[in-house]
Amino acid sequence: MTQKILADHAGLKEVKAGQLINAKVDLVFGNDVTAPVAVKEFEKIGIDHVFDKDKVAIIPDHFTPNKDIKSAEQNKLIRDFARKMGLTNYFEVGRMGIEHALIPEKGLVVAGDVVIGADSHTCTYGALGAFSTGVGSTDMAAAMAIGETWFKVPEAQKFVLHGKPGKWVGGKDVILHIIGMIGVDGALYQSMEFTGDGLQYLSMDDRFSMANMAIEAGAKNGIFDVDDKTIAYINEHSTKPYKVYKADDDAEYVAVYDIDLSQVKPTVAFPHLPSNARAIDEVGDVPLDQVVIGSCTNGRIEDLRVAASILKGHKVHPDVRLIIFPATQAIYLQALKEGLIEIFVEAGAAVSTPTCGPCLGGHMGILAKGERALATTNRNFVGRMGHPESEVYLAGPAVAAASAIAGRIVAPEEVA
Amino acid sequence: MTQKILADHAGLKEVKAGQLINAKVDLVFGNDVTAPVAVKEFEKIGIDHVFDKDKVAIIPDHFTPNKDIKSAEQNKLIRDFARKMGLTNYFEVGRMGIEHALIPEKGLVVAGDVVIGADSHTCTYGALGAFSTGVGSTDMAAAMAIGETWFKVPEAQKFVLHGKPGKWVGGKDVILHIIGMIGVDGALYQSMEFTGDGLQYLSMDDRFSMANMAIEAGAKNGIFDVDDKTIAYINEHSTKPYKVYKADDDAEYVAVYDIDLSQVKPTVAFPHLPSNARAIDEVGDVPLDQVVIGSCTNGRIEDLRVAASILKGHKVHPDVRLIIFPATQAIYLQALKEGLIEIFVEAGAAVSTPTCGPCLGGHMGILAKGERALATTNRNFVGRMGHPESEVYLAGPAVAAASAIAGRIVAPEEVA
Repeated sequence: MTQKILADHAGLKEVKAGQLINAKVDLVFGNDVTAPVAVKEFEKIGIDHVFDKDKVAIIPDHFTPNKDIKSAEQNKLIRDFARKMGLTNYFEVGRMGIEHALIPEKGLVVAGDVVIGADSHTCTYGALGAFSTGVGSTDMAAAMAIGETWFKVPEAQKFVLHGKPGKWVGGKDVILHIIGMIGVDGALYQSMEFTGDGLQYLSMDDRFSMANMAIEAGAKNGIFDVDDKTIAYINEHSTKPYKVYKADDDAEYVAVYDIDLSQVKPTVAFPHLPSNARAIDEVGDVPLDQVVIGSCTNGRIEDLRVAASILKGHKVHPDVRLIIFPATQAIYLQALKEGLIEIFVEAGAAVSTPTCGPCLGGHMGILAKGERALATTNRNFVGRMGHPESEVYLAGPAVAAASAIAGRIVAPEEVA
Repeated sequence: MTQKILADHAGLKEVKAGQLINAKVDLVFGNDVTAPVAVKEFEKIGIDHVFDKDKVAIIPDHFTPNKDIKSAEQNKLIRDFARKMGLTNYFEVGRMGIEHALIPEKGLVVAGDVVIGADSHTCTYGALGAFSTGVGSTDMAAAMAIGETWFKVPEAQKFVLHGKPGKWVGGKDVILHIIGMIGVDGALYQSMEFTGDGLQYLSMDDRFSMANMAIEAGAKNGIFDVDDKTIAYINEHSTKPYKVYKADDDAEYVAVYDIDLSQVKPTVAFPHLPSNARAIDEVGDVPLDQVVIGSCTNGRIEDLRVAASILKGHKVHPDVRLIIFPATQAIYLQALKEGLIEIFVEAGAAVSTPTCGPCLGGHMGILAKGERALATTNRNFVGRMGHPESEVYLAGPAVAAASAIAGRIVAPEEVA
């Protein structure tokens, strides 16, 4: 599937794994950490315009609202650049969101697209049947100028999903389960292709969450078969033409995995790797200082609905700070209208404006030495959320909400 | 009025201006910036308990949710101390607010109290007819141990308010007008006593805003006559006994000012002093990059109502970031229920969980070089909100909301 998309964008009939190609990009973007570097590189090229004002996006989401003078300066640099270039898609504080939630929501990516972003979780849009992957800031700069970039065509792994997941099992549990199975380099520079009749039980938000974490298995990208849910999502959010690619029946895969969704349990990744996955019934006693619900992985409306369904009528444990970050302003507004924000605040949670916040140790919930957080984010490396001697556990919104109430990691059933 | 309260708390019949006294305190508190220093000093004293678990409060509000590892460590220190001492009034992220809004809301201060806090805006509670003033962290440490502290009894100035303020004039405009009149040292180490029949037109939120800024005129404290509104507020929020003090008819004042509230216009303090006050019609053309509505000065429910009444149906100017900080979780919840948060988000504002945030250049909206902000906060010193070459203009919520829409400082009438 990935190879077909890349071939089309490279103007070739077909491509082989390992082949180096130049491909046109349908979107290139960066954030307030990566875009400033790209802008400086772009300016060295010495041209005064980007290849297409509608196909370059800049989203300041990591340290916004500005954490400090340095981040304010970085943000000013890219804001000024966006104005000078007349970019259609620069998103300001108050009208923005976390890039990987905002870009699909704004209809900037559709099935069949090739998207590069200067952020590792750019792989998120594979949920829409697009090829999308993270690049460095210099590749972003070059692509802003010429509208294409080079790729080494990846090999592919196939994940055949079947069965119906249990009540509290979402996309995050499935992907943590898979990464636990294959390891953080289990799909190194390969494409993870998700298919099978189990897809019908995975919402778009489940799929975004899964594709988002393909990089945590080392993958070049993650990509889902396009079905009615995908098309409905695209029609709701975008006016761009889309193209549905399907893998050939005889497509070559370096590995094929069969995943029975009905057997996947709520899953938690222990420090300090996303692959340290344990089913919820093997977690043991892990008291918590902080719980974070949000991020490009799990800050979407369904994540908030799941969390609210558990938190409703409960109080956050007195020893726990629960911080909730809706991933975009539109999601925040939707959650507001559905009464979810009210449930969160009444439970004793802090609800923030959209930002990447503590996910990458940025701001708004950094951990002290010895503190332990459970987060719906995507990485639990050493020091990821603060002090090198703090710990991050990863889970989906159901486990996160339940654990915030219990003050330790528990199964949703224990409180819901 | 101040002298009578101090005399009672010092066990004396009367006190004179300039006299050094020891007075019992009804509440001593600190925040995440000042309390860590106080805790370390307290530990040097070598006792294992505070004088009264109900009368010592710690409120981490400045860099919370934790901005970085350093602030997380500071917060952990005071959290651990609060647990060890069994403090009744430690307020955690998600259940907290900005100290000077939270303390009255939680009923921790009532008329006639003596309150010290390790924060300069502790003078806020004068709105309730209490004596309250900011102290250093070492004074906080000593008072946590022994429940009393020393004061030099201040002289007093009287501000007689009369007349009814215009539609868009609130407490903030009145106090900026007064500071503009008397200067930032106009009440140096004196008590600003507010009285007169104009008080009837000032809500409690107006009065909190005014008392809050007494320190910006150099005052030791600001204090209001107690009336029906004060009593109603106290009864709604507190079960503590209160005592109403009244100034003697022949009380001595070093100055008496007569303020006609009907003549006060919406007022803006220009950089870099709160005393650089100009009436709105003398502001001229001042384009803005950021507008901040919130803080211990103007993050209360009436402030949000005023802002929402102007923002409703409008959009924030594309070049402006509007960041709104309800001052406490209870205010946030109330604003949510009244539909104000929805108005803000639909207008394109970022709404944050309660924090001091950018007011003191902390986080969540720091300015880059050359940027200009209008804020409902209390200080506009050089570099207060970020880069030393940025500018802060102070105003009330009506001017702030209108200016966010216009993209430059304007009178509320221009958009409302």
